[in-house]
Amino acid sequence: MSSNASEFRVACLGPCEVDSPLMRQGDHQPRAHFVNDDQRVLVDDLINGDDETSFHDRPTLELAGPRPKIFFNPSELGVGIVTCGGLCPGLNDVIRGLVMVAHHRYGAARIYGFRYGYQGLCPGEEPMRLTPDIVKNINASGGTFLGSSRGPQDPAVMVRRLQELGVQLLFVIGGDGSMRGALAIGQEAARRKLPIAVVGIPKTIDNDLAFTDQSFGFTTACSTAMHAIRAAHSEAKGARNGVGLVKLMGRHSGFIACFAALAANEVNFVLIPEVPFSLTGEGGFLNALAERLNQRGHAVVVVAEGAGQELLHRAGDARDASGNVRLQDVGPFLADRIQTHLKAKSMECTLKYIDPSYIIRSVPAAPADSVFCWRLAQNAVHAGMCGKTQMVVARWHNRFVHVPMRAAISQRNQVDPSGDIWLSVLEATGQGELMS
Amino acid sequence: MSSNASEFRVACLGPCEVDSPLMRQGDHQPRAHFVNDDQRVLVDDLINGDDETSFHDRPTLELAGPRPKIFFNPSELGVGIVTCGGLCPGLNDVIRGLVMVAHHRYGAARIYGFRYGYQGLCPGEEPMRLTPDIVKNINASGGTFLGSSRGPQDPAVMVRRLQELGVQLLFVIGGDGSMRGALAIGQEAARRKLPIAVVGIPKTIDNDLAFTDQSFGFTTACSTAMHAIRAAHSEAKGARNGVGLVKLMGRHSGFIACFAALAANEVNFVLIPEVPFSLTGEGGFLNALAERLNQRGHAVVVVAEGAGQELLHRAGDARDASGNVRLQDVGPFLADRIQTHLKAKSMECTLKYIDPSYIIRSVPAAPADSVFCWRLAQNAVHAGMCGKTQMVVARWHNRFVHVPMRAAISQRNQVDPSGDIWLSVLEATGQGELMS
Amino acid sequence: MSSNASEFRVACLGPCEVDSPLMRQGDHQPRAHFVNDDQRVLVDDLINGDDETSFHDRPTLELAGPRPKIFFNPSELGVGIVTCGGLCPGLNDVIRGLVMVAHHRYGAARIYGFRYGYQGLCPGEEPMRLTPDIVKNINASGGTFLGSSRGPQDPAVMVRRLQELGVQLLFVIGGDGSMRGALAIGQEAARRKLPIAVVGIPKTIDNDLAFTDQSFGFTTACSTAMHAIRAAHSEAKGARNGVGLVKLMGRHSGFIACFAALAANEVNFVLIPEVPFSLTGEGGFLNALAERLNQRGHAVVVVAEGAGQELLHRAGDARDASGNVRLQDVGPFLADRIQTHLKAKSMECTLKYIDPSYIIRSVPAAPADSVFCWRLAQNAVHAGMCGKTQMVVARWHNRFVHVPMRAAISQRNQVDPSGDIWLSVLEATGQGELMS
Amino acid sequence: MSSNASEFRVACLGPCEVDSPLMRQGDHQPRAHFVNDDQRVLVDDLINGDDETSFHDRPTLELAGPRPKIFFNPSELGVGIVTCGGLCPGLNDVIRGLVMVAHHRYGAARIYGFRYGYQGLCPGEEPMRLTPDIVKNINASGGTFLGSSRGPQDPAVMVRRLQELGVQLLFVIGGDGSMRGALAIGQEAARRKLPIAVVGIPKTIDNDLAFTDQSFGFTTACSTAMHAIRAAHSEAKGARNGVGLVKLMGRHSGFIACFAALAANEVNFVLIPEVPFSLTGEGGFLNALAERLNQRGHAVVVVAEGAGQELLHRAGDARDASGNVRLQDVGPFLADRIQTHLKAKSMECTLKYIDPSYIIRSVPAAPADSVFCWRLAQNAVHAGMCGKTQMVVARWHNRFVHVPMRAAISQRNQVDPSGDIWLSVLEATGQGELMS
Repeated sequence: MSSNASEFRVACLGPCEVDSPLMRQGDHQPRAHFVNDDQRVLVDDLINGDDETSFHDRPTLELAGPRPKIFFNPSELGVGIVTCGGLCPGLNDVIRGLVMVAHHRYGAARIYGFRYGYQGLCPGEEPMRLTPDIVKNINASGGTFLGSSRGPQDPAVMVRRLQELGVQLLFVIGGDGSMRGALAIGQEAARRKLPIAVVGIPKTIDNDLAFTDQSFGFTTACSTAMHAIRAAHSEAKGARNGVGLVKLMGRHSGFIACFAALAANEVNFVLIPEVPFSLTGEGGFLNALAERLNQRGHAVVVVAEGAGQELLHRAGDARDASGNVRLQDVGPFLADRIQTHLKAKSMECTLKYIDPSYIIRSVPAAPADSVFCWRLAQNAVHAGMCGKTQMVVARWHNRFVHVPMRAAISQRNQVDPSGDIWLSVLEATGQGELMS
Repeated sequence: MSSNASEFRVACLGPCEVDSPLMRQGDHQPRAHFVNDDQRVLVDDLINGDDETSFHDRPTLELAGPRPKIFFNPSELGVGIVTCGGLCPGLNDVIRGLVMVAHHRYGAARIYGFRYGYQGLCPGEEPMRLTPDIVKNINASGGTFLGSSRGPQDPAVMVRRLQELGVQLLFVIGGDGSMRGALAIGQEAARRKLPIAVVGIPKTIDNDLAFTDQSFGFTTACSTAMHAIRAAHSEAKGARNGVGLVKLMGRHSGFIACFAALAANEVNFVLIPEVPFSLTGEGGFLNALAERLNQRGHAVVVVAEGAGQELLHRAGDARDASGNVRLQDVGPFLADRIQTHLKAKSMECTLKYIDPSYIIRSVPAAPADSVFCWRLAQNAVHAGMCGKTQMVVARWHNRFVHVPMRAAISQRNQVDPSGDIWLSVLEATGQGELMS
Repeated sequence: MSSNASEFRVACLGPCEVDSPLMRQGDHQPRAHFVNDDQRVLVDDLINGDDETSFHDRPTLELAGPRPKIFFNPSELGVGIVTCGGLCPGLNDVIRGLVMVAHHRYGAARIYGFRYGYQGLCPGEEPMRLTPDIVKNINASGGTFLGSSRGPQDPAVMVRRLQELGVQLLFVIGGDGSMRGALAIGQEAARRKLPIAVVGIPKTIDNDLAFTDQSFGFTTACSTAMHAIRAAHSEAKGARNGVGLVKLMGRHSGFIACFAALAANEVNFVLIPEVPFSLTGEGGFLNALAERLNQRGHAVVVVAEGAGQELLHRAGDARDASGNVRLQDVGPFLADRIQTHLKAKSMECTLKYIDPSYIIRSVPAAPADSVFCWRLAQNAVHAGMCGKTQMVVARWHNRFVHVPMRAAISQRNQVDPSGDIWLSVLEATGQGELMS
Repeated sequence: MSSNASEFRVACLGPCEVDSPLMRQGDHQPRAHFVNDDQRVLVDDLINGDDETSFHDRPTLELAGPRPKIFFNPSELGVGIVTCGGLCPGLNDVIRGLVMVAHHRYGAARIYGFRYGYQGLCPGEEPMRLTPDIVKNINASGGTFLGSSRGPQDPAVMVRRLQELGVQLLFVIGGDGSMRGALAIGQEAARRKLPIAVVGIPKTIDNDLAFTDQSFGFTTACSTAMHAIRAAHSEAKGARNGVGLVKLMGRHSGFIACFAALAANEVNFVLIPEVPFSLTGEGGFLNALAERLNQRGHAVVVVAEGAGQELLHRAGDARDASGNVRLQDVGPFLADRIQTHLKAKSMECTLKYIDPSYIIRSVPAAPADSVFCWRLAQNAVHAGMCGKTQMVVARWHNRFVHVPMRAAISQRNQVDPSGDIWLSVLEATGQGELMS
């Protein structure tokens, strides 16, 4: 990651001059464990023997946590929460955490939940009032308590709605596109000199988020995906030359495919967007699969939804010569090619194709993700109360940090084809390079 | 069930004159808890006030359990096990139980596992030798350790193979079709006067088995199906007018759909083969669904794969006028019709369709099914050692019984549209009659 | 079970003359699937070859289900629910089901939940008002939403409280003792000629309930207990001569110990109250355990809390000669005796003792129990609406039935030492008679 | 952490001159993703505004991963594996990973598993030969496949045994004490100039390991502990003034108590060794608990086993004035004090005490831990093949690193009473300082 330091400076609505309620050390009030803006975390903590740069030349991220002085006066503060895009385990944990901390620790005056994504910020839509009582058990269910939707809305319209409702602090839980929308809201508010802070909690089940160790819900998603792989394995072993083919999430990043395969211990081929493979040819996937079947009588294949795009383009072209080439779904495409290939080799084959998408993304967060979501929410509230804006909270090298939205959406986290995760996968599957 | 008593008489290879090894009360040898052939269980234990028949006029089933005298001499006995048809939770528990009891309790000389269904009983296929050590942990995995396949094989060929291998007692774990195959083997052996017993352990994830309280794997399947319904519910609630549509197993019997819906507590419509419904019209399903959406903003629909066949026929006819009308898949058909209907009503709708089939049927047995499989296997071995043949073991009114194969496959267990299970579903979902 | 028919006649407040609301076949109202009082289920459906009795001489139980005419006028009816005694999986499912059916199907005017067992029926305690909205998700948690307590209260006081609140139909979810209390309430109301019906839903995690196939929560408890056994197995295998000792519930009946052991497949000794065993002596437990350790290097022992009482009495006597002999806890007692015995034999031993009691009984119901609880609750409401009283609902031979409270508490369900469950255990563990 | 750089230099048996087998890019051989010894990771990546030190002055850890040249010739290499101390989820995953990578990737000639900890390295004990087939499914079970034991053995004796068996690379999976033993073996070998490498994979369910983000099994342990807390919550809510008290692992570090409490969302008090608390007095724990009960009617308390030692000492002294003061168990001690305190206040109370220890530590690793164990094992083998010795593998700031054993055991990871984890707990529980 080549970056210069200014990229990582977090915007702020103004100086923090209000005493944090966490300072009041009365009974049953936690001692605050304050952090200041001078504490920063190195983006890159790896040193090479001959590297002579000072660490002051290296980009850093602002450390998250409660500050002794905050920007907003909680007793007048309206807080808004919105969830956008597809489901991801942990959404309700984050909502719950935001409400709990904003209410119990800071005493925010009003907390609104906007329904069905950015649509809920448009005229004609009434937000829900959120209280600790309402949200206390929502994390027992998957999905999002607030509802969600895809697609942007007009920032000007949304900012006007926030003004009407007296919301000065908006939390947006969503993916890349939603963060772009959140940025637009923050910028529109800044343009109009409104003291409205927009803080993101980035959501991406694919773990494709830059400057973050792992995105919330990812651990849960991998565990759940593992069950689909287990099913594929049982099906594969249950038939002569049985093939279990599982498609998992991952448009651009194959993390779920890799980690679920590592967890399941039963996968023979993992295909991800970051690592191209040949379908045909001697070293290609289809022949490697046939060889595996000849040796062991069954095989399990995990494919990320974004894998092999270039093969699909070509295949798509072959069948559909019109202008608008639309990508085929890699799952059925592979299923078809495998069966055709084995038939041509006169090999009996029973292929079972499993596409568990909704079942994975809609489960409640597993305990480890629950804790992670709680801590993300805490740090998001701490940041928001200080008037930090156009930023997201993330965990980097095991610390919670603030990342400017612009930086967060400027790049994507991917499986490094020469890094240790992919090596782990290669060692666990025994698959070769799959290139002819 | 109108039946006459002779239907339920179990065939036997001959008189039992060998002392059961369970009789030898040495150290660490369980005391046997013997049963005799005179003990029988009423098929129908319900009495109506004015009913004057004696219970001796009612059909009965033979009580299962160990007998003090057995037919086979264990020290010379070859046992075979074969699994046929689709996967079902508990297959490995049954295999494991058969091996354990045949080996440890009776001391059977040799136990073979035939690979990949009836194919494994054909020339050119070598069976596996099964021992307690080999099978002791197989029940930790789903699927079938032996592999399976569909379709029959020539009974004469298979009987010859059994003879070659010295197998006199064959256990067949499989569904309706497989039991027909097992019956054919038993009959062929009888025709050739060979002392070969064929005992079935009926497998049907749909619970559509006559003379049985519940088929093995059914409890596990319903629990697992519930997760798919949970996912559908999260998806449905996460979108404006969200519809979660789940297709579950059940070609002729909607038990899984009913029980999974009851367990999940979140289903608004259950559609099963036994209860016809109208798609269109005022009281029909589509309008009822639209009404539900208008009232609550989301809905969960569970459909058994065999539901609404008559609607599909008609739809199929419309598109495909040829002789061989092939049924459409009810899941995508319903998904399509729902979306079309709501669009015509200008209702926004986000439908998520979930088809979890393989994920459900390939899981390991849950503890309750594990115990049930163990007990089925025990009773199957007890029956087989006595030379009982052309029969299956089942649990009826909470007792283990012997049912002649012919009777077992003569009828199907279905959800009674005027019985208490369907009433439970109607009360839990609040769905009406769905007939226009 | 020797019984005469009159024992099983269910008391009723009076003739049923009100049309059941289930009769109104309007839109979205389930068709009712009516049952009448003449339909009865044989208590004993087993026939012996030479048995000449008519089935009219055999005792029968009244079939449960909705009747076309009911006793109470729902629009004036006050319903009460109380949970008593220790926790059991499914309590919240039953509460939820009672409220749902009483409200949605019958339109009961008011439903009260009494807090903390019979204490909640005493002066000074305010009941909760229960509605479908309040209870709709309570079954996601274990325990009882209403709270519970042990011990009886004065029936006269409680009946007066019911009168004050206008409660004519009381559902009591509890064990033996609580059913005695419920019977006292019903009798007191009858004595005072008050039209108050008392219907029990028997709760016993030990499955020691007469006239019932299985008590609610039992399946869940066994599954959960299995995890404790798994832990014991891991601990046992992890050490030289490792012994994992698990104490499970079961004061008088060892069902949980038996079923959990069968499900876990890893248990070497099961000790239950119904089957006496010797501790010392050649064939006794301690020597059998030592032998097992010599052969396999580890062992898993499951003991029901009520097992070996007679040994404990003696041991207790030996140490404590005073008048008040108080039973020792069998778990630590066995742990101590095992370690002493092995030490005397100079055998190294690492014993891990696990007592998971609260963890087992406080979990939410597993799906199969959830469905079962729903159906019990439905049938309880159907019975109560007809003015049936001093009775419990149960499932007998896979049918829901009414059992008079007096009969239900007159005997206890136990593992039959010569029946098929204990045989299953003996075959699964390979343990011998354990008698010296 | 104040350290100087030399502390973190990893010892090595000699120069690496053998080509790594991972270099051979034949069919189905993963491309290696090589790392070199110059790549190091900063121990401290936090920068303060005014900090002027160069990062070259900061201590660093060696990056783990495969090297292009290795020290041992795999075709002659004997590898040993031993597990020591108490159980921890993931032990079998680590064993499995070590065998798989040493065999499949490096082609190690022989792999031995020593039974029952360091005892297995003593005369008279035969190790097991380990192959991929033997270990492929062991991770489905908890515990350790090799068995374990506590306590050291004579290093000279063990080194002699390694020589006899031709083991040059020993992997030790164990805790603090075991790492001291491993260090002694490495030092003894060095003293005798034997080319024996000793590589540790540190095991501590308490997560009290320095220089590591999280220890393996910790995520699993927290998830499992959460079930015990859920049980405590159900029990507490089920009784008037119900108190659920759960003791969790954590002699010196309260991580499990903190994370399980955060995951469960239902805990009112967390007591850990790092944060002293008063029992009595106005702001003390007992009064805070009484207040909580008065307000809400129930409470859940989680106590780490090492919490409140100073209170116990005092209590212990009071009862036992002899020289050898033995610590009381904090769980029963607290249970007793709570009940006494509430009784003195005439408050009714039902306390349920849960000590789930063995159930937590003996479960199989959850998927996330499985993956983590696999990657730890991979990196341990890579390190060992290079002749690195007297070191452990760890994950620091999300990277795998090598840490000298001496450094690894020189300090302990603890919950920082002014850090963000404890703040999270305070915010989640709402508990105050609990000091009078």
